[in-house]
Amino acid sequence: MTSGPALITSRDNPLLKDLRKLAQDSTAYRKQGRVWLEGDHLCRAAIERGVKPAIAVFQESAWPQYAGEFGTVADKTVLLAENLFASLSSLDSPAKMGFIVKMPEQALLKKGVPTVVLDGLQDTGNVGSILRSAAAFGFRQILAIKGTAALWSPKVLRAGMGAHFALDLLEGMEPPDAQALDVPIVVTSSHEGELLHETKLPWPCAWVLGHEGQGVSTAMMEIADRKMRIAQPGGEESLNVAAAAAICLHASAAAGVAKAG
Amino acid sequence: MTSGPALITSRDNPLLKDLRKLAQDSTAYRKQGRVWLEGDHLCRAAIERGVKPAIAVFQESAWPQYAGEFGTVADKTVLLAENLFASLSSLDSPAKMGFIVKMPEQALLKKGVPTVVLDGLQDTGNVGSILRSAAAFGFRQILAIKGTAALWSPKVLRAGMGAHFALDLLEGMEPPDAQALDVPIVVTSSHEGELLHETKLPWPCAWVLGHEGQGVSTAMMEIADRKMRIAQPGGEESLNVAAAAAICLHASAAAGVAKAG
Repeated sequence: MTSGPALITSRDNPLLKDLRKLAQDSTAYRKQGRVWLEGDHLCRAAIERGVKPAIAVFQESAWPQYAGEFGTVADKTVLLAENLFASLSSLDSPAKMGFIVKMPEQALLKKGVPTVVLDGLQDTGNVGSILRSAAAFGFRQILAIKGTAALWSPKVLRAGMGAHFALDLLEGMEPPDAQALDVPIVVTSSHEGELLHETKLPWPCAWVLGHEGQGVSTAMMEIADRKMRIAQPGGEESLNVAAAAAICLHASAAAGVAKAG
Repeated sequence: MTSGPALITSRDNPLLKDLRKLAQDSTAYRKQGRVWLEGDHLCRAAIERGVKPAIAVFQESAWPQYAGEFGTVADKTVLLAENLFASLSSLDSPAKMGFIVKMPEQALLKKGVPTVVLDGLQDTGNVGSILRSAAAFGFRQILAIKGTAALWSPKVLRAGMGAHFALDLLEGMEPPDAQALDVPIVVTSSHEGELLHETKLPWPCAWVLGHEGQGVSTAMMEIADRKMRIAQPGGEESLNVAAAAAICLHASAAAGVAKAG
């Protein structure tokens, strides 16, 4: 006979304590080796990419609505009393379910693979958006230079909408590591370099995207093979870095398709 | 003899009360007819576009560092005691200065002008990023359909980095209003329509961008002249809407430049 999912009602439950850290501390995953996926959209996206959650967590009152879809996907299922679930989230619009997922081990750097280098980006929404664009446009590997927002934090996971599980993510990198990629290193600049839409782009390549305020670091600029900028007929506006990334990665993918064809 | 800026030390100061509403309530600008620009980057971007702030506000301790640059730009300058300024912000990383700026009156809808239609977008970062892209790529007018995030809220202003002041912003629109634009209406879709990179885009046109989860509304779909999707050789990923917008608006701008040339 199968028993129903366990119900947690105490604030001091050890699993709940771990979960609270995972949900609220953006780097707790590094200690726990597991990550927190909050919300049904994200959980669905993860399942679609073959993720098998270790623990599925539901707000008690939301369990009936989710039991059919998510009731048997995880090794273990727990319900949290109403107020306990509500106290977990660090997101603007808290969800009523989530998965705890064992983190993939950090992959080794692969040579010759289309790669995106995150050079100190701070905004979790930007980082997640860039991971989505990277996965959509056929990039396979992400190098996060030290100082970049924690890739597996709940907010980046949420913004990434499952892209984490379609990519090899390497954190804690240094600029010289990008040279080991053995592909042309292309940096974005707001004021110098070739105009993206007039250029034949290399494929595969490594695109470097810089900090929201300061742009690409001097160290990365020095090892860049190509510098690109995006024409802005509207005037000297600045683009959001995730918007610029989307334009660059999309243009690269078109070059890749042309080469393959 | 000129006196220095006024120092506000009471929580009950009427200006501070108004400012608190502006900073924390995303639609308070509609009552007050003025907006709150928080942070030196944004304030600088506004000045570069010719904005003349009504009131410049500084954390008392930060005044010496900003006095040289911003001391005389506003009609009035006030300092807030340390704890009062810190209590204002609804942003993740609170700033130490800001401007109160009189809102431009809502413009009348212009025909024949490159336009972006925001059809129910919710995320303030996405909306701000799209305004930046729109301004950069030569769009001149934004139509926000009812249900879209408040365009002049502090968070959208922050993410917009001054683009608000380069565009005509029309809020509270209904889908049929887009038909009055008298330009081709182009919608983005994740699963149907012409492939963007294989298509000759019209210019001027109106791009319609949809809600983060539900996409473009049925009402807008029905009045669309063209449907476009972005090829994703990496697989069936979804793109962040501001990333998709950047790709579409950039492609349109290139078509516009080609037509002009």
